Amino acid sequence: MSLITGQNFIGGQRRADGSIIVKSVDASTGETLPYSFHQATPQEIDDAARAAACAFPAYRSLSAVKRADFLDAVAEELDALDAEFIELVCRETALPAARIQGERARTSGQMRLLANVLRRGDFYGARIDRALPQRKPLPRSDIRQYRTAVGPVAVFGASNFPLAFSTAGGDTASALAAGCPVVFKAHSGHMATAEQVANAILRAAESCGMPAGVFNMIYGTGVGEALVKHPLIKAVGFTGSLKGGRALCDMAAARPEPIPVFAEMSSINPVLILPEALANRAEIIAKELVASVVQGCGQFCTNPGLVIGIRSEAFSAFQASVATLINDQPAQTMLNVGTLRSYNDGLQHLHAHPDIVHLAGSKQQGNQAQPQLFKADISLLLEGAEILQEEIFGPTSIFVEVADRVQLNAALNALHGQLTATLIGEPDELLEFAELTALLELKVGRILINGYPTGVEVCDSMVHGGPYPATSDSRGTSVGTLAIDRFLRPVCLQNYPDSLLPDALKDANPLNILRLVDGYPSRDTL
Amino acid sequence: MSLITGQNFIGGQRRADGSIIVKSVDASTGETLPYSFHQATPQEIDDAARAAACAFPAYRSLSAVKRADFLDAVAEELDALDAEFIELVCRETALPAARIQGERARTSGQMRLLANVLRRGDFYGARIDRALPQRKPLPRSDIRQYRTAVGPVAVFGASNFPLAFSTAGGDTASALAAGCPVVFKAHSGHMATAEQVANAILRAAESCGMPAGVFNMIYGTGVGEALVKHPLIKAVGFTGSLKGGRALCDMAAARPEPIPVFAEMSSINPVLILPEALANRAEIIAKELVASVVQGCGQFCTNPGLVIGIRSEAFSAFQASVATLINDQPAQTMLNVGTLRSYNDGLQHLHAHPDIVHLAGSKQQGNQAQPQLFKADISLLLEGAEILQEEIFGPTSIFVEVADRVQLNAALNALHGQLTATLIGEPDELLEFAELTALLELKVGRILINGYPTGVEVCDSMVHGGPYPATSDSRGTSVGTLAIDRFLRPVCLQNYPDSLLPDALKDANPLNILRLVDGYPSRDTL
Repeated sequence: MSLITGQNFIGGQRRADGSIIVKSVDASTGETLPYSFHQATPQEIDDAARAAACAFPAYRSLSAVKRADFLDAVAEELDALDAEFIELVCRETALPAARIQGERARTSGQMRLLANVLRRGDFYGARIDRALPQRKPLPRSDIRQYRTAVGPVAVFGASNFPLAFSTAGGDTASALAAGCPVVFKAHSGHMATAEQVANAILRAAESCGMPAGVFNMIYGTGVGEALVKHPLIKAVGFTGSLKGGRALCDMAAARPEPIPVFAEMSSINPVLILPEALANRAEIIAKELVASVVQGCGQFCTNPGLVIGIRSEAFSAFQASVATLINDQPAQTMLNVGTLRSYNDGLQHLHAHPDIVHLAGSKQQGNQAQPQLFKADISLLLEGAEILQEEIFGPTSIFVEVADRVQLNAALNALHGQLTATLIGEPDELLEFAELTALLELKVGRILINGYPTGVEVCDSMVHGGPYPATSDSRGTSVGTLAIDRFLRPVCLQNYPDSLLPDALKDANPLNILRLVDGYPSRDTL
Repeated sequence: MSLITGQNFIGGQRRADGSIIVKSVDASTGETLPYSFHQATPQEIDDAARAAACAFPAYRSLSAVKRADFLDAVAEELDALDAEFIELVCRETALPAARIQGERARTSGQMRLLANVLRRGDFYGARIDRALPQRKPLPRSDIRQYRTAVGPVAVFGASNFPLAFSTAGGDTASALAAGCPVVFKAHSGHMATAEQVANAILRAAESCGMPAGVFNMIYGTGVGEALVKHPLIKAVGFTGSLKGGRALCDMAAARPEPIPVFAEMSSINPVLILPEALANRAEIIAKELVASVVQGCGQFCTNPGLVIGIRSEAFSAFQASVATLINDQPAQTMLNVGTLRSYNDGLQHLHAHPDIVHLAGSKQQGNQAQPQLFKADISLLLEGAEILQEEIFGPTSIFVEVADRVQLNAALNALHGQLTATLIGEPDELLEFAELTALLELKVGRILINGYPTGVEVCDSMVHGGPYPATSDSRGTSVGTLAIDRFLRPVCLQNYPDSLLPDALKDANPLNILRLVDGYPSRDTL
């Protein structure tokens, strides 16, 4: 593990101009860790954005294979981080070592998967319409299109994934893959972790000969605002709270030059349990559901916060089983004091609500989060009451009983946008309830059948996105290879001599990529 | 031609609840036309959005082939509009009949091209990652992704293209192709035209059995605001002024649920003329350039508003030739009084500026637009002076001389985002100045070599977009088949039984589309 200096990463240099010091804490003990992080000064924030902008033309123009090599090198460096590093991450987040090791593998795997996308070349979206000089009434010029990077991207890491959604996480990986230099704002919850990962990225950047400002990182409170407002920043990636994400969206939209923000924010991830499944395997479902609710202390964006079933004796019995299991779950340490405070506040709102009943869970007190179970009246869902739509970040879930199928559809219609929705059902009844999947498609980014939403596979087909407030733009995803699309824009090149075309569009197709040529996919040379 | 009633189109019905009447005028004479359009009431606006939302689930779920048939039927109906219709459009816009006929062919061609995209199926973005039940440490579920419609779209037509960027224009065509019902706000400059086209769309919708609210249209001033703020509207397409587009973007961003806006707004479309080309063919370039400046009275988004060259005797001589040609160009009638007034205002600003010289053009007066030529000091470009960056809509252009290649690069760096940039050069010098295309890629949506920006081909490779303020989101285009992407979002389906999957993702690949299967493009059945 390298020395932790607490200095900002700007254009390949370390800088500590400012006098405001921020500290990281041991998430389990609350003890201040012996590192001092220098909050970036306005000048440093400006310099970080400038360094990224300065690196941009060269970095964007690198061959995709070179960028792929860089991402692979980052993956190598991440995998090479030692046991002391894992221990450090655990200290800052109170997450267990096995989880951190798994998350590290996911993070490096994500880099490698995006490297594959760069080598595969489909991200270019290469299209060629050849000239039609004889066309009447007007000839057509040779017209070609490919996609290139939007510009420097500001990335805000998440508290709950110190690796996979942070310094070298999905937003950074997809921005770097797209050809966008990054200015990363280190999360206050794991700044020492961020520094180690930033060092790993810089080692890879140096060994691969990347431009100095390809990756920058700043520390501090309130530095994000200046970053999002900086004229040289051209897009933003964020994972966090609805309040924080919306604030960034509003700032970005109000700039003289508005920029796109992809903010992954708030989701309650409804789980629908259908009658036959309940009749056949209520006990297994109860166990699996509770495991999903308390996994990682419920600190997942895809945590199942709402369980919906059709009123019946079986559903009541199921509810009772889940309540018993929840009572058996141990308290867990949360990521940080702020998270625990929010969890406390969320629970208090639920306890105080006249139409919500507490079903299970030890009294929430002390330094750890107690798993909880509630039940809300269906009217709250149908009326779109905020209390049911807001994510409570932590190991808790809320049951809602609907009277019948008609009310079930009405309840789903009343839901806000979600990252996921889950259907638990037997094969026959899934077909019988086929209207549910159609309805849920309008509401969510991902629908799971007979699975649980916690656990987001990093692959080509994943969508970790969804309609507002799950994210700020339902057209994007922050996990999976499609994440790169958020940071690419198309450019059209008309009547170019072959030698001036990028490789992706040259007649000879030197990259051997699949292109849309005169309306047909082809790898042929022209 | 059908009877013009001036009633709003809502959910397949005609409605005229309101008492505010708006009138269309003859663009050449200023005479009020004998049609009365009923401004939509707040209730009618609400009903239009509701009609679109009501049609959405069914329309989205139609097979792409059915939507393709609908677009083809719209194309047929447009092509079948009679001579009286063409005459009406000419009256409302003062555009010549040949231009309107050409624009109509482009508009129906655009519908047919998008129908092809629907049949081709690549818009689905189908991706499949098959289950890996034996994977360690964790098995992988079957995960599939396709793209579906974002929801009802509000479309604002442009003044300058009464057909191709209006009622059945590119935004409407790409929204309908994506599976999004449309609420179209008729442009005040050609409401009778809009009504005829809306009737054509509805005839096609009826003959194809489309849901009633698939296309809606409202008339009136100020009705756009309520439309953009309506909670059931999920995206906006706009072509028009920077001021208008930005206002819509701000409204959309400030909604409780922000929605994406694609606004195509302001561009001065710089043309760079390199020395050798000037030495070899100055006269031809001068003629072609002037033709591009005055084409359609300069009322194109891609009108060349800025001509840049390196200071030399040849460039001075070229400037003089262009000035002579501009003096020879006849005055033309503009689209409407508002456009002429804006043109007047723009010219007055140029005349009044101490660092801008008037080179050619008769005194601007009367009811027509006089072509004009100006020359601005390079300092204005280098300092980013607003007067040079703002589009002056009409037959005028501004010359700027740079001292040398270094200053040329500095000038291009100072440009705001543009729809297009054009390079006129000989083959050798284009290579010698290769840094220009790299630099321009950062600034524009389309680069043309040895062509002129007016004239936007509708094809797979076209980009009619670009960085702000050319558009509100450089990741989109409003012309060409990629325009459909603005209105699609990805959805991930995990562990689905085959029978519940959409056809695009079924094992048997019944649509025979190209899909990304386990990382490889394939049409195979699974």
